[in-house]
Amino acid sequence: MMVRTAVMAGVVFVLAAGSAHSAEGMWTLDNLPRESLRERYGFEPDEAWVEQLMQASVRLASGCSGSFVSGEGLVLTNAHCVLRCVGELSGAEADYVNDGFVATARENELRCPAEELNRLESITDVSARIDAATDGRSGQAFIDARNGEKARIEAECVGDDAATVRCDVVELYGGGMHHLYRYRRYQDVRLVFSPEYRIGFFGGDPDNFNFPRYNLDMGLLRAYEDGQPVATDAHLSLRREGAEEGELVMVTGHPGKTRRLLTASQLERLRDVDLVNQLLYLSERRALLWQYGRSGEEAARQAQADLTLTENRIKVYRGQLAALQRPELFARRRADALRLRATAKTEDGDPWAAIASAQQAYRRIEAPYQMAERALGFDSEYFKLARDLVRAGEERAKPNAQRLREYQDAALTRLQQTVLTTAPIYPAYEETRLAWSLSKLRERLGPDDPLVKLVLGRESPEALAAKLVAGTELGDVDVRRKLWDGGFEAVSASTDPFIQLARAVDSVSRDLRQRYETQVEAVENKQAAVIARLRFAAFGDALYPDATFSLRLSYGEVRGWEENGRKIEPFTRIGGLFSRATGAEPFALPPSWRKVESTLDMETPFNFVTTNDIIGGNSGSPVINRNREVVGVAFDTNIHALGGAFGYDETLNRCVAVHSAAMLESLEKVYGAGTLAREMTAN
Amino acid sequence: MMVRTAVMAGVVFVLAAGSAHSAEGMWTLDNLPRESLRERYGFEPDEAWVEQLMQASVRLASGCSGSFVSGEGLVLTNAHCVLRCVGELSGAEADYVNDGFVATARENELRCPAEELNRLESITDVSARIDAATDGRSGQAFIDARNGEKARIEAECVGDDAATVRCDVVELYGGGMHHLYRYRRYQDVRLVFSPEYRIGFFGGDPDNFNFPRYNLDMGLLRAYEDGQPVATDAHLSLRREGAEEGELVMVTGHPGKTRRLLTASQLERLRDVDLVNQLLYLSERRALLWQYGRSGEEAARQAQADLTLTENRIKVYRGQLAALQRPELFARRRADALRLRATAKTEDGDPWAAIASAQQAYRRIEAPYQMAERALGFDSEYFKLARDLVRAGEERAKPNAQRLREYQDAALTRLQQTVLTTAPIYPAYEETRLAWSLSKLRERLGPDDPLVKLVLGRESPEALAAKLVAGTELGDVDVRRKLWDGGFEAVSASTDPFIQLARAVDSVSRDLRQRYETQVEAVENKQAAVIARLRFAAFGDALYPDATFSLRLSYGEVRGWEENGRKIEPFTRIGGLFSRATGAEPFALPPSWRKVESTLDMETPFNFVTTNDIIGGNSGSPVINRNREVVGVAFDTNIHALGGAFGYDETLNRCVAVHSAAMLESLEKVYGAGTLAREMTAN
Repeated sequence: MMVRTAVMAGVVFVLAAGSAHSAEGMWTLDNLPRESLRERYGFEPDEAWVEQLMQASVRLASGCSGSFVSGEGLVLTNAHCVLRCVGELSGAEADYVNDGFVATARENELRCPAEELNRLESITDVSARIDAATDGRSGQAFIDARNGEKARIEAECVGDDAATVRCDVVELYGGGMHHLYRYRRYQDVRLVFSPEYRIGFFGGDPDNFNFPRYNLDMGLLRAYEDGQPVATDAHLSLRREGAEEGELVMVTGHPGKTRRLLTASQLERLRDVDLVNQLLYLSERRALLWQYGRSGEEAARQAQADLTLTENRIKVYRGQLAALQRPELFARRRADALRLRATAKTEDGDPWAAIASAQQAYRRIEAPYQMAERALGFDSEYFKLARDLVRAGEERAKPNAQRLREYQDAALTRLQQTVLTTAPIYPAYEETRLAWSLSKLRERLGPDDPLVKLVLGRESPEALAAKLVAGTELGDVDVRRKLWDGGFEAVSASTDPFIQLARAVDSVSRDLRQRYETQVEAVENKQAAVIARLRFAAFGDALYPDATFSLRLSYGEVRGWEENGRKIEPFTRIGGLFSRATGAEPFALPPSWRKVESTLDMETPFNFVTTNDIIGGNSGSPVINRNREVVGVAFDTNIHALGGAFGYDETLNRCVAVHSAAMLESLEKVYGAGTLAREMTAN
Repeated sequence: MMVRTAVMAGVVFVLAAGSAHSAEGMWTLDNLPRESLRERYGFEPDEAWVEQLMQASVRLASGCSGSFVSGEGLVLTNAHCVLRCVGELSGAEADYVNDGFVATARENELRCPAEELNRLESITDVSARIDAATDGRSGQAFIDARNGEKARIEAECVGDDAATVRCDVVELYGGGMHHLYRYRRYQDVRLVFSPEYRIGFFGGDPDNFNFPRYNLDMGLLRAYEDGQPVATDAHLSLRREGAEEGELVMVTGHPGKTRRLLTASQLERLRDVDLVNQLLYLSERRALLWQYGRSGEEAARQAQADLTLTENRIKVYRGQLAALQRPELFARRRADALRLRATAKTEDGDPWAAIASAQQAYRRIEAPYQMAERALGFDSEYFKLARDLVRAGEERAKPNAQRLREYQDAALTRLQQTVLTTAPIYPAYEETRLAWSLSKLRERLGPDDPLVKLVLGRESPEALAAKLVAGTELGDVDVRRKLWDGGFEAVSASTDPFIQLARAVDSVSRDLRQRYETQVEAVENKQAAVIARLRFAAFGDALYPDATFSLRLSYGEVRGWEENGRKIEPFTRIGGLFSRATGAEPFALPPSWRKVESTLDMETPFNFVTTNDIIGGNSGSPVINRNREVVGVAFDTNIHALGGAFGYDETLNRCVAVHSAAMLESLEKVYGAGTLAREMTAN
């Protein structure tokens, strides 16, 4: 056993930050860190335990995690994970974002216009099929072969059940391994509970990623099928007492993206190109939304969700940039590469050099690729809808395996849902973002760039945006449905100005995507697979892959940390919330809380921190004890863990969660939703 | 001669980019690169030539350069250098910024509310006095001794003539040398000509720092004394024919700041801390101003100048950041340091290590220092005025040599002018910027920071900004005059909310400044002086110092460049302007130009590029030939020269200027100002 542990420690050092990383890792459920769990916590989960947990965990297709917490399809996640749904259900008349929403009876639950839940059913290793299909190919041929084989595997997996089955081929270890994840799909997702914005995001952006913390960042959804709540036998239940300091806790969820296996040249590109440019773009966008919102209450409401998410991304990226400004990180990556390179055979070539040269290729296309293909130059819902309609029309006419990934059969069910959403679109808000982003398009590419000239012609960004928004009918879901159903012909015949714009930029945009995929992504994938093989050979398979928004388990314990010689306690309490409230945004409490202040138990634990290794995408993950009882819902990390994209440091990185007691106490005493509390605690 | 040239080449390599840097350098007028001028261009200026040029060159205290172009005090500079004055003279009734301004008769010339011209009269080496005063001191004692001695030198130099004499002790070579610059001061500065914004900034931010270019970026001021135009015998005159391709041209002006002598650790700090944080701040501010301006024409006018300057700074900083992302630059600095370090004696210590540790000290205080002392957290004219009034009241009560630099006698004349400006202040615009920047203060320092709590109390940034702006009377210049004249007592008794705010934050703010000066600046200065001595010993004194907003001469020639195999011609012509105009902002022409299109000579040279080594602060500099004739006015560089802060590359870096012919043609045919054209061409 010591050998295995020693190898583990070696691996961990290669992957991550410094010493004492025992809680490191986002482990796939078919490769849990069993030795560590046993040695450190004396915990040995059996197959049934894992299987039940897998079936109780859910992914929100919009980018979060959650868990079934009753036998009737009730899903616990974060308030910020249901924010978009709540916003889309709101309007000038009913502002559920700021006033909150509680359905104490089933018939009051409201369907989210564009949400989908996925529950993992099985994992199958399909590496051999992908390897066989791509063997000996590179560039475009590699991409085509890989995408084609993925599409075939996924189509076989889905069969005729696209409405209820979703299958994703997941690339692990940067392409070193491919697994097929088969999910049960639920598209009728209804809103059950969302707290007022003021308490769900108490402290707002200033407190975001900080701790001590006081957020009731919980939200409840319910999965329906055929108009009835889904029966979910394999579910979790809340344990009101939570977990003790030092107790083993685990988090299951869908961490979005880590970069712990990237090479130094990839990290340099991230630091110098992507993060800086994204941060500048988002910072501008933030002030744009903020000032737009200052023109009135309704405008503020329209921009609220985007502003919250923009501010959140800015904090995340700032944290990542700070982590990448530490020279030690690069020194370690280079040392790692040197060691592995020494084990390479002649036929492996120099994967690090090939990846470095792909980074140069990326730097050359970054501005147009981001502006056009990633649509940063067209910050508009209308444009997104138009592009999807235009491309879906074109792609669906092709054989499945030859389509762009996101228009393959496996993706269409979800795509149709987002294209035909009934969420409102606000023309003035669209015009503002579009005018601004068109000026960014011109700024990044220059006024003499052919694409810029094609888009703007002799117009200013402002005038063009006004004209496009005034002329479009894409705000009408029936118009979109006709275009979706009518396919290529209907889209080609459309004179809608956004459809015409999306069509006009599409050949340039597709060309950029092809250059990105063949010159950057294909190289990175092929070479990462070579490096992964070297790594497996050197360290065995007791390695976790970088996060890929697929199901993972992280283990750790309830624990505070020390900062500048000061000890940060692991729990906050409801009393602390009332002390911190000033009455001014974002430190104002909603009336519902002020009204019942005297009835609340001020000692109730509110938020708490654990050493679990999590990252964005894990939002809404259940925090469970060894009995699979929910002791909290993860909603954030501390500021130190923002560097977690590149490595884990157990002394500082913390997961932040809402305590089960706070959830139950507030449902019962603040929201009059004792029925929900009972449902979540029943076995 | 070969020896000296060889040393020069060595020096140049140490300072700057690669090979062939013959046009490199921003030379003080007492140390011109005579050998290079003679060897490369056969040009040997005599003392009279230099003296006349010095007297014809002027500095705009607001941050630009210019030249006397007639015997009656007429000053040629850029439109963007008079933009603030033009904005301050405008209002909702008269919009000179967008409609332009021409005074064809003296009585129509309008006094700028807060501009000052300085004409250099003499340069004296005072290094020995500063060295003697600071000898053996460090930290606060070093700062006090240096500032005290500077104040004494300046006070002696000014004597009783503060109204007409300005004296600055200029730190050269990062503190390795100190020279006293004595200027003639002119505070009655009147606006004579400013073109419409559309033609002065044709192409706007998209074309800024680009070439080919078509900007009539010229402005005319006139210096007055006792109500009469100043007689300026030593003046320049325009040469309509301009200069030929390949011809020697020189630029005199006041380059603001270069960093060619900084160490690698200083550049790292600049790259990772200052530039990134400034860029994020400015990017947000940009969208704030843009969206504020979209609420109406008057709002757009209020924000216009700030928006232009913000966008300009963003482009400059982005260029600098890109230059600092090249690893070669750091490799060269480190090699330079290694070579010089080898020549150091034991008593020199390790200046590079000391400077590196000062950078760590800076990183620790950067956020509060920038937010509080540099007032980024208080983006408001009211706050700036309040701080100056509070500090002036306090500082003026102290002996001159013990005051903060900007409140010493030598600076008071100019300070009083800016504090008592009659420029309008717009409350809604103030409130917007202040609310936003207070939220940045909270963001950078965190909601629990004592200063943040002191400032915000239980208020939100928005509510506090509204309250402060509603309550202040500082918009009234008479109120300010009473506080200025009343000094410490009047300020202490004031209940104006901005005065109270400025007073409240002052002790924290002064403390941060002291930490910055003693832990960062004093170390950098002392150690830069050591490095400068090593450098002089190794390479002789044929070195130019980093730019310091003091008078410099740069030489070069009219020349295009090659880019991606394409040759960029050095001249654009008026015909090109009309081809580029689309009618939409920022490529729309003003009516005045469209009206006379048929009468203009389309072959007239408009803008041109030269190899001169210039940087921000050089705006408005005359471009002259060897006969001291003005062939253009410098207003910009190309995009490559943005890295010029760190080094010069003759193959790519270019100065961009308005051609003399375009200035004369437009004054005569577009603006009916033939009298001004004649005045500028008379000898």
